[in-house]
This record gives sequence, C-alpha cells and structure tokens, in this order.
Amino acid sequence: MENTQEYSHKRFNPLTGEWVLVSPHRAKRPWQGQEEDANQETRPTHDPDCYLCSGNTRANGEKNPDYEDVFVFVNDFSALQKNSKQFSLNDGLIKAEVEQGICKVICFSPDHSKSLADMNVKDIQKVIHTWQSEFTSLGKQSNINYVQIFENKGAVMGCSNPHPHGQIWSQSTLPNEVSKKDIHQKTYYKQNNNTLLQDYLKQELKLKERIVFENRAFVVLVPFWAIWPYEAMIVPKQPQKDIIELPREETILFAEAISVLTKIYDKLFNTSFPYSSGIHQAPTNNENNEHWHWHMSFYPPLLRSATVKKFMVGYEMFGMAQRDITPETAAQTLKHLADNLYTAKHF
Amino acid sequence: MENTQEYSHKRFNPLTGEWVLVSPHRAKRPWQGQEEDANQETRPTHDPDCYLCSGNTRANGEKNPDYEDVFVFVNDFSALQKNSKQFSLNDGLIKAEVEQGICKVICFSPDHSKSLADMNVKDIQKVIHTWQSEFTSLGKQSNINYVQIFENKGAVMGCSNPHPHGQIWSQSTLPNEVSKKDIHQKTYYKQNNNTLLQDYLKQELKLKERIVFENRAFVVLVPFWAIWPYEAMIVPKQPQKDIIELPREETILFAEAISVLTKIYDKLFNTSFPYSSGIHQAPTNNENNEHWHWHMSFYPPLLRSATVKKFMVGYEMFGMAQRDITPETAAQTLKHLADNLYTAKHF
Ligand SMILES: O=P(O)(O)O[C@H]1O[C@H](CO)[C@@H](O)[C@H](O)[C@H]1O
Ligand SMILES: O=P(O)(O)O[C@H]1O[C@H](CO)[C@@H](O)[C@H](O)[C@H]1O
Repeated sequence: MENTQEYSHKRFNPLTGEWVLVSPHRAKRPWQGQEEDANQETRPTHDPDCYLCSGNTRANGEKNPDYEDVFVFVNDFSALQKNSKQFSLNDGLIKAEVEQGICKVICFSPDHSKSLADMNVKDIQKVIHTWQSEFTSLGKQSNINYVQIFENKGAVMGCSNPHPHGQIWSQSTLPNEVSKKDIHQKTYYKQNNNTLLQDYLKQELKLKERIVFENRAFVVLVPFWAIWPYEAMIVPKQPQKDIIELPREETILFAEAISVLTKIYDKLFNTSFPYSSGIHQAPTNNENNEHWHWHMSFYPPLLRSATVKKFMVGYEMFGMAQRDITPETAAQTLKHLADNLYTAKHF
Repeated sequence: MENTQEYSHKRFNPLTGEWVLVSPHRAKRPWQGQEEDANQETRPTHDPDCYLCSGNTRANGEKNPDYEDVFVFVNDFSALQKNSKQFSLNDGLIKAEVEQGICKVICFSPDHSKSLADMNVKDIQKVIHTWQSEFTSLGKQSNINYVQIFENKGAVMGCSNPHPHGQIWSQSTLPNEVSKKDIHQKTYYKQNNNTLLQDYLKQELKLKERIVFENRAFVVLVPFWAIWPYEAMIVPKQPQKDIIELPREETILFAEAISVLTKIYDKLFNTSFPYSSGIHQAPTNNENNEHWHWHMSFYPPLLRSATVKKFMVGYEMFGMAQRDITPETAAQTLKHLADNLYTAKHF
C-alpha cells in the first residue's frame, strides 16, 4: 500500500465505475480561502419561529401536530409533482421526459435542539422504522419506482432549518447515481453470485485498514474509493436489497451504527458536523433486484477544522473528484474516536 | 415546450448521457438558509501579500518575475506529480493505479484588482494564446494524455486568492467527465458523421430560445441540459477538436465571447460573479479525435442574488442534479443583459 500513501494515484469505485484522484502529499498545503462559520450555536428545545417544531404553522398555513417522536409530511415546496403532465420530447439532440414524484419531509424529533448525534439509539430506531414504512408505502404508489431517503445537515450543506430532519424524494425513474450502481451491482452479481458489497465487506473485514466500527449486523467503514475527506458508509453484513429486508431485531443495530458515526463526526472537529447522507437501495419497480445490497453513505465536506471545508470545484467538476488525505488516514482517525467513545460510555 | 416550463421533468445531456431534474414550479420557494458574503471588496492593483502578484515571493521561496501580461508557473502544491511511482493494484474490489501529471497556475493579468470581466478583449486574447501554447507543450510531454484548463473564481468556489488566475492540470488518463463526453461524442460521430455539438448548434440557432450571444465564430448559449442556474457554454461554430485548431484570427472572437459572458454575469446580481469554468477538449493521446468538438463551460452557483446560491447536496449527490429556474428563463435574462451591453458600448 506504500504507493497509495505517498504518490498521486487514482482509485476505482466498483459501485459507480468512476475514479477518484488521490493526492496524499498535498494534505499539508496552507489554506487562505473561504472559511465557514463554526456552528457553535445552542438552540432551544422548541423554537416558535421554526416551521418544523410541533404545533407551529408552516408556510402553506398548515399546522404541525403536537408530535412526540417522528413526524412526516409532504414537502410544501416539492421538487417533484405527482400530477406532472405526461410528455416526451425527442427532437434531435433535445430530449426531455416527464418525471413524476412525491417529496416528503421527515422530522427526526420534536426537540429542536437535537441532531441524530444527540438522540438516543432508541429514538434513532424510530426514525429507521419510519424510513421503512415510508419506503414501503411510497414504493407501492403507481409510477413510483425509486425512493431516495436523505438528509442535508448544516447550513454549509444547504440545510435551511436546523431542526433535525431529513427528506424522502420518490420518483418514476432511476436517478443517475442509482442507475450507475444498479448496472455495476447487476454485472457483478451475474458474474459472482454474491452481491458486490458482500464480497467487498469480506475483503475489508480481513484487511481491517478502513473499518471504523462494527456490530453484529453492520460495518461502518471509509470506502477505499471515498471522495469526501471523512466520507463513510454503513453496510449491513447480510446482503439485503432494501431496508425492508432488515430484520426487525436488527434495526436497533442500524440505529447504533448511525449513532456512533454521527457522534464521532461531532467529536472530530468539536462541532455539529455537517454532511449529506443518503440510503441507496433497490428500486421499487417489482423487478428481481437481488443484486442490490443497500447501504447508507455520509458525505461530509469538512477537511481540517470546523471552518475549513473541501471544495469540489473546477477540476472536480470538469475532471474527477480529488482528495488529499487518504481514506486510510481518515479511517484511522475515526476508528480511534469510535474506540474512545465505547470506552467512555456504553450505549 | 409548455410542459417543460410548468411541470417537473428531466432533460437529457447527450454529451454525458446523464439526466437533470427540472422543477420550474419551485423557483418561488422562500430561502431561509445560508447566505454567502456579497463580494463587494475593491482591491488594489498590486497587493504586497499576494503570492500571485508580480515581484512577490511565493510559499516555496521563489520570486515571481515582474510579468506584464500572462504568467505561468508549476503549482507549488500540485495535486498531480510527474514522478508518481508506477503501480497497479488489482486485488478483488480494491483497485488503484498510478496517475502522473503536471499542474500549473496561470495568472491572467498582473493587475490584482481585475477579473476576466474587467479585462479588455485584447488582454483576454493573451490568456487564450497562453492556453494554446500550454496545451501544446503539456500535451507533448510523455505520459500526458489529457489537459484540463479551468478557473475557480470567487471564495464560494474554493478560490483562495482573488488575483485573476486559472489552473491547468494535465495527466496520464482521461478523468471521468472527459471519458463520458469522449464516448458519447464518438458514438454520435460514427452514426452521423457530424460532431454532436455541430448538430446541436444547428438546432439551437434555429430555435433561438437559449442563445445568449453570438459572433462570427462562436455561440454563447445556455444548454438545454444545464445544471447550474446560469450555466452557459461557449462553442465554436466550426467543429474543432481542441483550441489549437482555433484559427489565429478567431482567438479575438473567443476572447470577445468570454468577455461578454463574464461581463453580463457581473451585471446579473451586481457582484463579481463566482463560477468554475473549464474547457473540455480532445485528449492529447495522438488518436484520431475528430469526434471531439471543444467547448468552454461556466458553472456559476448563484441562484437569486449575490448571496443566495444553489446547493448541490443530498438529492443531487445521491440522485441527480436538480434545478429550479429553467434554462430558457436563464437564457432570456442573460440575453437581455448581453443586448444591453452591446447597445451601451462597443468593444
Ligand atoms: O488549487 P486551489 O485553488 O488551491 O484549490 C481549489 O481548486 C482545486 C481544483 O479544483 C480543488 O481541488 C480545491 O478543493 C479548491 O480549493
Ligand atoms: O429541500 P431544501 O432543504 O429546501 O433544499 C436543499 O436540499 C435540496 C435537495 O438536496 C436541494 O435541491 C437544495 O438546493 C438544498 O438547498
């Protein structure tokens, strides 16, 4: 592995078929650019001006119920509409198609001051149960063939409200990122009769270079092909095509994995760690999706401190993703924090 | 086109084979999230602390010459190294390869206070001539098969120094974005015997819905599949595989196109408009690249004002790019500004 720690090289992401440029020698360059605001605010448990807090009124005049744990509603500014007109434009190089969908917001807790990192494992489990039921009910709707669960956390990730919440956008066709993973997992499964991530986990659990945390059912690791400085992935040890296949008694272990990862993220730079997270899973298209192995990824932008982030700009937009610290270094740092967390206090 | 102005739909990018989700109805949602600093600073023409100004000393102790127009040097913190050790790792799902390269910085002007938008067309032409000579000389080096010219402008685009400058990263293999465009242009060329952009320009020049500006040799337009709110593309009317094929007498027209676009960008929100720009062109791999039609793209993040940008986060990272205002609306706004610019003053 020496060459991958010293010299510029590229790594292959077998899930997407894309490469990432790694420049380990560059980690020490000085930073004189934009710094983010450190997120040091403390928030009240209920904010009368927050449109996600229980009992408050939203932009469209609707009043939130006095919810006690998780609350889901249809996004008042949905990017996808269920009633989009059917059409297909195919005029030479000008090509467009209708895309129908349903967008929902999911409040993780009535407590305005919390984030997943501050919630206890049992409360995170309630979020997971809601993801499962939303995935099931949205997936059953006519013309919904894919359900994307995600969270934008922190102002730097475009989150406009600090109340703990995520989103679910469901739609008729597979978005780009999901298509890529669908194709690559299918090819792999046909050739190997195992899911790609099943075999990848086997390798990683043997190498132990990028594992951050594991419990009986889940592995948290920094993938070999990670793009973001402290990117990580939560993968179930058993191949499951979607979160519905996660046995009821293991949802608490998924909650634990989320809890550990978000807690150590907050410890890393002593800040409420911003990220976008998302669950990639099988389409809800009634096809045989046994090649799918669902996983949850975290893409956090911070690079060296609470205020200095990695910019994915010029070269990254026109060429390919580029990173400085290696996934191995990031994994060691995160693993160390996870070990301390467990010594310090039991969940 | 009615359906594409009212309802959520997706549009196809024939250059990359990817889709973008368009949600025209969503343009009016209120924004309560992070706002950027408006860039209202005025800068001196020479800043003694700027490592790009002429005569100043850089981080590595080297002194910049007293340059008079354009100045190029090897990046002191190059992400790619020419001496990266040869290796290839292919262990199951863990796959990496050496990537060698040369990274350069190109100062557009000795005047610290300027940007391309403030420079006159003749001075921009000098930048273009330098791009051409760098492209030629880097492309000839052993093991350099692709040359990426780009600029990150503005703190919000990760630019750490406001001195007008861009970068050139050259490397042994084709980065992801370029590979995609290589494949799709090749397939198109084989089937149609015209370059993809040649036929696309024909369509756009007839429709006139997304054209912002044109001169004898260039078209500036908002592509039908644009991702960023005010994304635009400068395309030569004649198919040329790279900027070397641009006839000497037309470099001034390329300079004019850059000048018009950057000037109207600055007018749009009355701010020094941030963006990443880049030139996609044929690889320097000595293959027959007649399917390539080079073009320069601008990806500006601002959405509604000098302080509110579009965030490409959760859904965009896990699903696909998503935009609110349509490319047609953006093009009309930009065209209007371009028309006014020409009435106001001749270049
Ligand atoms: O090279 P610079 O200006 O120091 O750095 C900037 O541009 C690079 C190329 O797009 C990016 O990798 C960096 O994240 C960004 O901050
Ligand atoms: O839906 P929100 O939180 O208002 O908006 C945020 O998340 C969306 C989905 O990733 C993005 O399209 C927006 O750019 C971002 O600001």
